[in-house]
Amino acid sequence: MPGTASLPPRSLAVIGVGLIGGSFALALREAVGELRVVGYDRDEVNLAAARHLGVVDVAAHDIAAAVREADLVLVAVPVGQAGSVLEAVAPALSPTAIVTDVGSTKGSVVQAARAALGSAFERYVPGHPIAGAEHSGVRAARADLFQDRAVVLTPVEDTDELPRDIMRKCWEACGARVEEMSVARHDAIFGVVSHLPHLLSYALVYDIATRVDADTFFRFAASGFRDFTRIAASSPEMWRDISLANRDVLLLEIARYREQLDRLSDLLAQEDGQALEAYFRLAREARRNWNETP
Amino acid sequence: MPGTASLPPRSLAVIGVGLIGGSFALALREAVGELRVVGYDRDEVNLAAARHLGVVDVAAHDIAAAVREADLVLVAVPVGQAGSVLEAVAPALSPTAIVTDVGSTKGSVVQAARAALGSAFERYVPGHPIAGAEHSGVRAARADLFQDRAVVLTPVEDTDELPRDIMRKCWEACGARVEEMSVARHDAIFGVVSHLPHLLSYALVYDIATRVDADTFFRFAASGFRDFTRIAASSPEMWRDISLANRDVLLLEIARYREQLDRLSDLLAQEDGQALEAYFRLAREARRNWNETP
Repeated sequence: MPGTASLPPRSLAVIGVGLIGGSFALALREAVGELRVVGYDRDEVNLAAARHLGVVDVAAHDIAAAVREADLVLVAVPVGQAGSVLEAVAPALSPTAIVTDVGSTKGSVVQAARAALGSAFERYVPGHPIAGAEHSGVRAARADLFQDRAVVLTPVEDTDELPRDIMRKCWEACGARVEEMSVARHDAIFGVVSHLPHLLSYALVYDIATRVDADTFFRFAASGFRDFTRIAASSPEMWRDISLANRDVLLLEIARYREQLDRLSDLLAQEDGQALEAYFRLAREARRNWNETP
Repeated sequence: MPGTASLPPRSLAVIGVGLIGGSFALALREAVGELRVVGYDRDEVNLAAARHLGVVDVAAHDIAAAVREADLVLVAVPVGQAGSVLEAVAPALSPTAIVTDVGSTKGSVVQAARAALGSAFERYVPGHPIAGAEHSGVRAARADLFQDRAVVLTPVEDTDELPRDIMRKCWEACGARVEEMSVARHDAIFGVVSHLPHLLSYALVYDIATRVDADTFFRFAASGFRDFTRIAASSPEMWRDISLANRDVLLLEIARYREQLDRLSDLLAQEDGQALEAYFRLAREARRNWNETP
């Protein structure tokens, strides 16, 4: 087996120096002490800011230049771009460098990596840090973004053990707790607890916004609406990519959710107050229990 | 026309001394200086606390005792109980006292008031303060709860002008801005911006909580889930009542919302990234614009 980069990485390439990519650079640098970070971003202004802020040491002109001397390559672009990015990474990758990503879906990215990386695929570790993204862009990047957060790795059968261990240790050095699961389980879980709520939230806002008298509705929307629709302010591009990438799961889950709406409609039509209260009570208990989980 | 209580009220009866009822007592007392507040609550512990905290001056043994000498009677109970409360209020009501409520639905309460109050119905002013209710109970009551908040009054054709003016002035004295609209419009608007989101939120939590592997889903639920489901921690009893009371609107709106889900499903099935992005973008713009409205 060809050698793989050892710990700790000394040279990191970040492709997509946004909140997540930027924060990983800051966190890893803090953890390992000495780290050379080369960044690339399709947005030149953002890349310049990353350089200016010291999030990256060098702003590369293109992906190949960024990747050439890296021990570790972090792909932190919208999941719809992962394929083309990995195709640009592959030819410039050193024979021992590790590649990893942070995408909100794993199935589509793993598939793209398999196609793009060839024999380097065994050095690719699929990853997904569960870290807040209310703000975006490199100016929001923080070294402690992953502190006490979960990071999910979804290595596949072909993934070598050493790259996997190295990524686990890197994330733990950033303060995160690392969990592993299959690609399919990841996309199923996050499809329900993250992707579906975004779609449901977008759908309500869209429904209201496209009414003739939308203004009146918005005028009287208050705190409940605010919380429920906060995630409808999320990046349309990012969520287009995630929705398409996790399409199969989402189609299934939307259908399943529709059954809940059918059930509630039936209870309302039958004026079954007891059943409605029991339904809401079960949900409230579950929500409260979740809220209290450390 | 029989006389009506003049401004300011000197004696207030609060039936249901919770967050809203209690806050109205505190706010009105602060506004008018001298105000005798008699409270009644089916929960003796809550009523005792209201007395102890000085939210009410007198804790009455029953509704009739509370109402007997009041200029103004505020009904602040779950909307499903409004009917029986108004039936108890009616016989004890003085010939000039005003009755008002704070329920989240207006159609059902107005109907109950018409049946219960007889000729006193013209002195009933239907109302709904749009004020935060994350906490509940008299201990959460605050004099400034309605400061800069909207209060909607939905007087009907039979409602006398003087009681209506008096209620407007009372709410304005509490710091609120008062808006008027028809009962139907009120229930249509709040059905969409408040009632429906609560049902949608309950439905997602219920869906997850009733899965065999619910624990795993909750384990990876994060900030998006938190915001979207915050309102699923709301009172099951209150929302049973609201759902039943605004049933017709909710059945309509659930059906309408289902169309949005159908639309999103179609776009996903067709892998129409452009349309998905446009959909999410429209929603985000609307949400951002709403957020910025003072």
